Amino acid sequence: MSLNDEQKAEIEALRAQSAPTRRATVPALEEMLYTARPVLDHGFVRVIDYMGDDAAVVQAARVSYGRGTRKVSEDAGLIRYLLRHRHTTPFEMCEIKYHVKLPIFVARQWIRHRTANVNEYSARYSILDREFYLPAPEHLAAQSASNRQGRGMVLEGQEAMEVLDLLRDDAMRAYDHYAWMLNEGGEGEVVDPGRRGLARELARMNLTLNTYTQWYWKTDLHNLLHFLSLRADAHAQYEIRAYAEVMLESVAAWVPATYAAFVDYRLGAVTFSAAMLAVVTRMLAGEAVEQKGSGLSKREWDEMMGALGRG
Amino acid sequence: MSLNDEQKAEIEALRAQSAPTRRATVPALEEMLYTARPVLDHGFVRVIDYMGDDAAVVQAARVSYGRGTRKVSEDAGLIRYLLRHRHTTPFEMCEIKYHVKLPIFVARQWIRHRTANVNEYSARYSILDREFYLPAPEHLAAQSASNRQGRGMVLEGQEAMEVLDLLRDDAMRAYDHYAWMLNEGGEGEVVDPGRRGLARELARMNLTLNTYTQWYWKTDLHNLLHFLSLRADAHAQYEIRAYAEVMLESVAAWVPATYAAFVDYRLGAVTFSAAMLAVVTRMLAGEAVEQKGSGLSKREWDEMMGALGRG
Amino acid sequence: MSLNDEQKAEIEALRAQSAPTRRATVPALEEMLYTARPVLDHGFVRVIDYMGDDAAVVQAARVSYGRGTRKVSEDAGLIRYLLRHRHTTPFEMCEIKYHVKLPIFVARQWIRHRTANVNEYSARYSILDREFYLPAPEHLAAQSASNRQGRGMVLEGQEAMEVLDLLRDDAMRAYDHYAWMLNEGGEGEVVDPGRRGLARELARMNLTLNTYTQWYWKTDLHNLLHFLSLRADAHAQYEIRAYAEVMLESVAAWVPATYAAFVDYRLGAVTFSAAMLAVVTRMLAGEAVEQKGSGLSKREWDEMMGALGRG
Amino acid sequence: MSLNDEQKAEIEALRAQSAPTRRATVPALEEMLYTARPVLDHGFVRVIDYMGDDAAVVQAARVSYGRGTRKVSEDAGLIRYLLRHRHTTPFEMCEIKYHVKLPIFVARQWIRHRTANVNEYSARYSILDREFYLPAPEHLAAQSASNRQGRGMVLEGQEAMEVLDLLRDDAMRAYDHYAWMLNEGGEGEVVDPGRRGLARELARMNLTLNTYTQWYWKTDLHNLLHFLSLRADAHAQYEIRAYAEVMLESVAAWVPATYAAFVDYRLGAVTFSAAMLAVVTRMLAGEAVEQKGSGLSKREWDEMMGALGRG
Repeated sequence: MSLNDEQKAEIEALRAQSAPTRRATVPALEEMLYTARPVLDHGFVRVIDYMGDDAAVVQAARVSYGRGTRKVSEDAGLIRYLLRHRHTTPFEMCEIKYHVKLPIFVARQWIRHRTANVNEYSARYSILDREFYLPAPEHLAAQSASNRQGRGMVLEGQEAMEVLDLLRDDAMRAYDHYAWMLNEGGEGEVVDPGRRGLARELARMNLTLNTYTQWYWKTDLHNLLHFLSLRADAHAQYEIRAYAEVMLESVAAWVPATYAAFVDYRLGAVTFSAAMLAVVTRMLAGEAVEQKGSGLSKREWDEMMGALGRG
Repeated sequence: MSLNDEQKAEIEALRAQSAPTRRATVPALEEMLYTARPVLDHGFVRVIDYMGDDAAVVQAARVSYGRGTRKVSEDAGLIRYLLRHRHTTPFEMCEIKYHVKLPIFVARQWIRHRTANVNEYSARYSILDREFYLPAPEHLAAQSASNRQGRGMVLEGQEAMEVLDLLRDDAMRAYDHYAWMLNEGGEGEVVDPGRRGLARELARMNLTLNTYTQWYWKTDLHNLLHFLSLRADAHAQYEIRAYAEVMLESVAAWVPATYAAFVDYRLGAVTFSAAMLAVVTRMLAGEAVEQKGSGLSKREWDEMMGALGRG
Repeated sequence: MSLNDEQKAEIEALRAQSAPTRRATVPALEEMLYTARPVLDHGFVRVIDYMGDDAAVVQAARVSYGRGTRKVSEDAGLIRYLLRHRHTTPFEMCEIKYHVKLPIFVARQWIRHRTANVNEYSARYSILDREFYLPAPEHLAAQSASNRQGRGMVLEGQEAMEVLDLLRDDAMRAYDHYAWMLNEGGEGEVVDPGRRGLARELARMNLTLNTYTQWYWKTDLHNLLHFLSLRADAHAQYEIRAYAEVMLESVAAWVPATYAAFVDYRLGAVTFSAAMLAVVTRMLAGEAVEQKGSGLSKREWDEMMGALGRG
Repeated sequence: MSLNDEQKAEIEALRAQSAPTRRATVPALEEMLYTARPVLDHGFVRVIDYMGDDAAVVQAARVSYGRGTRKVSEDAGLIRYLLRHRHTTPFEMCEIKYHVKLPIFVARQWIRHRTANVNEYSARYSILDREFYLPAPEHLAAQSASNRQGRGMVLEGQEAMEVLDLLRDDAMRAYDHYAWMLNEGGEGEVVDPGRRGLARELARMNLTLNTYTQWYWKTDLHNLLHFLSLRADAHAQYEIRAYAEVMLESVAAWVPATYAAFVDYRLGAVTFSAAMLAVVTRMLAGEAVEQKGSGLSKREWDEMMGALGRG
């Protein structure tokens, strides 16, 4: 992550400001506000603003005139109840806004979550930074043999080196040509008065998908938890999971009771189908059930056994 | 609007709290926070929380590291440009939350705006207040003769009196029977130990549609402006317009530059069809155009002439 | 359910029409098209239109040029996989449209599902039918003693009779006064030339919440399944569950492979929290776990034991 | 656009199928079904399925038991009224599904329309085709001098040639390296048994943004018209406008009455702000208004004069 001096100064100016407010305020999240938390090689996540806290969930669930909260333990109990029974609307009453810098191929996965507000840096209007994602050696993985959309073992030796070289060289060359076609100068480029320069909205098509973009992304707590339950999951691609994990920390600071319930009822939870439940019931009754005859496919059986720690 | 002493105390407690925050803060809206602003005979609108300000719109449009604002006049100019060209996403970066008390038939219109978060007081779970909307004499209007979904002249004399008596008596009787069927006591009711009492989720069906309900309603600035452009409009039913007008005041306090642009480009604006434009162009060229031969229907002609102040 | 002769003729005319189409077509759903299936005492559900079938789910998942399907068993396997792993977007590729007649208090629950398209019969514009819901004796239940938003035992004898009389009389009186205030004649009403008549948008406020309304409601298969998983559930209020159950039958006819997967992975499935999983794992290892010391609350323990058939 | 023989056969098989249906059917759109209509150099748009027609809009607006239509002229009049007054919900009752092949940088603009259902070809799971967009000479434009997000004059001579060479070479090299890193063979590639091959979800990051992707995209008629009003507009980037224009033709075939109203009230319409209206009114009264003293900025003045054909 490379912030220039002007950007650092802007962030410091925001952090230095303080005003009194009557709104719900969370000191632990205030402490994080505006700071860029690094992700991958050049990306970051910054919390820009928030609205509400654990008590706002309770307040909305009770449609109360005041804060609506009682004892801390009662509030946490209500929050657990709401999350367990998927009464999701009270969690929609909290809102958070992030500034994120991320590779374009990650942005393309992320944007599929439609229930959010987004303003992306426009490459029609502006020129993108000369930054692209290159996997660290331990993330340079081969295709998984068993899972058509997953990774397997890490590449090593010559192959790893060659792959990294290709990724770096192609991204740099594509960017250099992007800058040349624009013919707008900047970073050591000299404007050639003999060329008009290609329109920005066209030149960008030459960039590779690991080029970094950035956006403001805002969503409510319910939709954020849904995003995180999918993207902080072991099946998510590593590069988006890296962002989800940093965002989880902001949730823990912001709404600790909701976060604890989320860890128990979502991140750590497992859904058993009707057929799986029947198998577990038989097993609990002391029966020795095998996959054959269980009514489950091999794949379902393995998923269930994995969840029960018998994988 | 009748708040009881406990509710007033809860509101005062919220207004008395203050905490320092690094977030964007709007003193004019802080001043309104939590206070119940009366609407109709028993309803109210309270601002409960907000996120962002005019500068947050600019900040998101520029995807900037700091506030992203320059001179006040430049920021206002950008906001006007965004609103005029329907670049709506930066306005989605601000969020506001209201607590509203409103008659059920108004709530049914309001809820059709889907891009919002809502927690309504549950009559499955709790008992509704004994409050119902009765129109003030000047709002007791006859069906419009010209518009199948509008109002015409105000009812007068004997008819007005009889209508008001019916509305009041039916609402009160329905509520009395609701309370009797529940058999849960409260407000001078005595519990009859010989009756089980009807389930709340069933008893509520006896209430009339002018009974008041309440909810927490949260939305972003773009969707709020869309709601207000439809509901603060002269074609909206008076009873929902009354709410929209109070909410407009909170927008004016919260985001004054956006509000000014909204008044110019939405509330006071008119859209001319291709055919209307052709007529205006001919008129500007000095031609005396009549409805017959204009290519416009009588109704379109009247709408256009009304917009041009020649109605 | 009472359709008049004109309505029956309109429905018959629609059912009599037939045209050749290249689109995906489902004979079992065609057979149901337009027919009103009764729900509650005066309500109904009619399938008006649909788009897609099981194969369209497969086609979208594969982004194929043709139908994208292979053997029936492979397609069903893919559908099961998608549903199990909550890959929900392919199910959004099918769409269905219903015409529903339902009591207003049911409509108010239903409309909270925002991801749908709705056109409701407008009582601002038109006059509602003289029909209201009265529970059958076996559904006239007392408040639950254990669940603040549920029903307990059925009311009996004198109390049941009195409650039914009140519900019927209040609904009829409110409707009679509604018709009188409108002063528009119809159904034995005589227009009184000495009265202007109250505007429809106002008069409707006198109706009780068990009055029937109707709407066109359209949604995609993913959101329909979500709706049904909540509303066909035992915790849903009986009156909306009655609609959900009829709609489930249309899903079974329309997309049988999706329906089968839905029954296994949603309707019959249970989600165990991390703490519950730990308990099940200990029990499977032969340990005698009790609620005390399980880390689960009494309520969670009961829910888990209920799911395991040990309630 | 290059469909291989297998794809052509699959499309022909779909076009050859026919089944009787009771649903609303539109012969003019049936005629287009499944056929790939070329866009840009390798892209296409295919209509895959649809639901509803002009009459379905009327039917929903009237919440009728039958088709709800009367005379063709009355129906068209109602549709015009609905569109003019932005009563948008009846248009949500029609749905259409497209299969689209498009460059990734176009897909990134398109996806910002959130109210749609999308299934994109997954480059985590599959290998993308070796196809990328190269602008035709007449679309190879310089940056606009006056508009920061628009195009100006066309590039010519040496510069045009060099730009095209760079775009082609970089895209081809990036794709070749993508294929090499995957090490999965195909199209003349030989698998190297000495390399594991990079995971697909990583290798894709090497592709340039003009690489073609494809998706199934489904939306309702209201949201489609909104999409088209923005993307078939002169301010839209040419490459997405090319798709919008082809889709407009499918709308004209599908719902001709809605299409005609859309052309008049949206595509050809202009919104005047309160300040602009005041100016037009003064001009119609014979006053010679100049920009200075009009209350309009230079930019607004030019936009208004342009709309009035006096640009």
